[in-house]
Amino acid sequence: MDGSWHVTGIDDLPIRDELRGQSPYGAPQLDVPVRLNTNENPYPLPEPLVQRITERVREAARNLNRYPDREAVELRTELAKYLTRSAGHEVGTANVWAANGSNEVLQQLLQTFGGPGRTAIGFEPSYSMHGLIARGTGTAWISGPRGDDFAIDVEASVAAIAGHRPHVVFITSPNNPTGTAVGAGTVRALYEAAQAARPSLVIVDEAYGEFSHHPSLLPLIEGRPNLVVSRTMSKAFGAAGLRLGYLAADPAVVDAVQLVRLPYHLSSVTQATALAALEYTDTLLGYVEQLKAERDRLVTELRAIGCEVSDSDANFVQFGRFEDSHTAWQAILDRGVLVRDNGVPGWLRVSAGTPAENDAFLEAVRAMKKEDR
Amino acid sequence: MDGSWHVTGIDDLPIRDELRGQSPYGAPQLDVPVRLNTNENPYPLPEPLVQRITERVREAARNLNRYPDREAVELRTELAKYLTRSAGHEVGTANVWAANGSNEVLQQLLQTFGGPGRTAIGFEPSYSMHGLIARGTGTAWISGPRGDDFAIDVEASVAAIAGHRPHVVFITSPNNPTGTAVGAGTVRALYEAAQAARPSLVIVDEAYGEFSHHPSLLPLIEGRPNLVVSRTMSKAFGAAGLRLGYLAADPAVVDAVQLVRLPYHLSSVTQATALAALEYTDTLLGYVEQLKAERDRLVTELRAIGCEVSDSDANFVQFGRFEDSHTAWQAILDRGVLVRDNGVPGWLRVSAGTPAENDAFLEAVRAMKKEDR
Repeated sequence: MDGSWHVTGIDDLPIRDELRGQSPYGAPQLDVPVRLNTNENPYPLPEPLVQRITERVREAARNLNRYPDREAVELRTELAKYLTRSAGHEVGTANVWAANGSNEVLQQLLQTFGGPGRTAIGFEPSYSMHGLIARGTGTAWISGPRGDDFAIDVEASVAAIAGHRPHVVFITSPNNPTGTAVGAGTVRALYEAAQAARPSLVIVDEAYGEFSHHPSLLPLIEGRPNLVVSRTMSKAFGAAGLRLGYLAADPAVVDAVQLVRLPYHLSSVTQATALAALEYTDTLLGYVEQLKAERDRLVTELRAIGCEVSDSDANFVQFGRFEDSHTAWQAILDRGVLVRDNGVPGWLRVSAGTPAENDAFLEAVRAMKKEDR
Repeated sequence: MDGSWHVTGIDDLPIRDELRGQSPYGAPQLDVPVRLNTNENPYPLPEPLVQRITERVREAARNLNRYPDREAVELRTELAKYLTRSAGHEVGTANVWAANGSNEVLQQLLQTFGGPGRTAIGFEPSYSMHGLIARGTGTAWISGPRGDDFAIDVEASVAAIAGHRPHVVFITSPNNPTGTAVGAGTVRALYEAAQAARPSLVIVDEAYGEFSHHPSLLPLIEGRPNLVVSRTMSKAFGAAGLRLGYLAADPAVVDAVQLVRLPYHLSSVTQATALAALEYTDTLLGYVEQLKAERDRLVTELRAIGCEVSDSDANFVQFGRFEDSHTAWQAILDRGVLVRDNGVPGWLRVSAGTPAENDAFLEAVRAMKKEDR
């Protein structure tokens, strides 16, 4: 008993009707030896970076009685340098905006370009938060089509855009949970279709961009004022606990989201920690290379075991097919490995972990397969 | 030239119509010797606390590749202990929710209990972010009345609630920018009126609660499932840079906001820093006592100078009256002191600073008054 008290239940509160009966988003957090369910980077930050974070945070803490830089100029400048270098396209401070996770970036974009009376489309299965953030901002959600191989079917997608005339279009590349990157030609075609239907914002969610076999789609923003690329430090920078998402776009888009961002949304400690991590870009991108190799190994070995596997450009792999994916999820969990059931019938998703974690996962799948026979 | 490029302006983007022509919220950030414009706590955190923050953050940084505790249980437990102790009413972990600043707490409440097709009322002048966050969540905003002395006129407010039947009611105590606390009887009356009109949420914004001459309104939440008290660590804890706001309410309200909160919204470093600050509650509340004494001195001396001054229960003081408040604001600024023009005709607001800062401010007002004669 911790002293909490209550007099009512959620159903008795005057919450919005569309929230009734809903559950909060989030993977089950289970205490299991090997957790490969939330696409976290398995490598802890190197100790020199931990040290650098404490130095930067100490400095920030000495000024913590003051509000943070409302516009996070230093951080946006360093993010711009990182993008210029890694995506091979020059962007500057004014092209970049940052928030508490790419979820908050997307929420700000939907508040600005979506919202009540407006619609957003995504091609599903995809990152389910897109639809949830749309709902949270009063934007009507349209579930667009995807091919049987989980690729975006350009013809069907263009037709869906022409038919629905959405105000916001989501393109996830690499797609989550299926893993495959989207080609530049597809993005160009969908952008053209979207602009032909009505002036509308196209968001390319590149949360897993650094893990792709293909270059970033970032260069496409040039000359396309209604195209935004969103990114995160959660995966490639091994900093899921930091909650630092960002976008690159025309500076007018950056100006626009400032009309809805909560003032001082990004704390001084968050800015300080992110700046420290950006100093260690080379080291952290080295871990990305290791994870890409492990990801490729997972694809190869799962196929050798006899699984169907979607091509992966991310730090996770979609594998199947199972008659009942929940039963398969449980069978793998019973062997000490937690993977993700994203609700795609017949398929599961596993995050690339350390070599030892991946071995444990592959062993669990093999054992499950053997038992099935 | 930093490499930024752009092809369009904000007016050419497909942003929402109601955002067109708007400016981002935020006080002008000017480089002035004495800044008393944003109600920051003038006392930096004590060095032992800075050290404790770096220790806690170091620990969090070693696990930064993992997502933060989505429900921030340890932090909410410590906040509950603090409230139990300081507000004299027992609350537990399940009664408390935390987010990136009380602005995000309020945004989550409006997404849950307000939103498209719903309305919120505040009694103005008050904290202008209430209306802006309402707008950002698609909630229609109603500007309710306030008496000539800036107190809430119970009869007029009850009539406004009965007439408009809002879904959300804001009561700010102590009120910002006017400074005066609201009595428990007023809150009870407005809560009754609000529930009589329709089941609706009543939010008591106690961002400046620790500075009041009166006890917290927190005990009123017991037996009132639709009453929420919101708080912040920005002011009393001297941690504006931390962005840590929280609420206390029936656990059902806490369950409800989790339907709209972005998952993992509160970073590991934010949670670690807040926990460190809560360890130093006694020290930090000592600074609050100094600020309260300085605040009372500002009221007394400003009245002695011949200003009209609103009774203040906050860490700031509203003073006037000026024929043209912007001219007075500029005259004080010309003497090296930045105060806030909140747009209340005839009045300005000054934050209580250090004794030396307050002396400089009082001297500037005296000089301005002398020149006026």
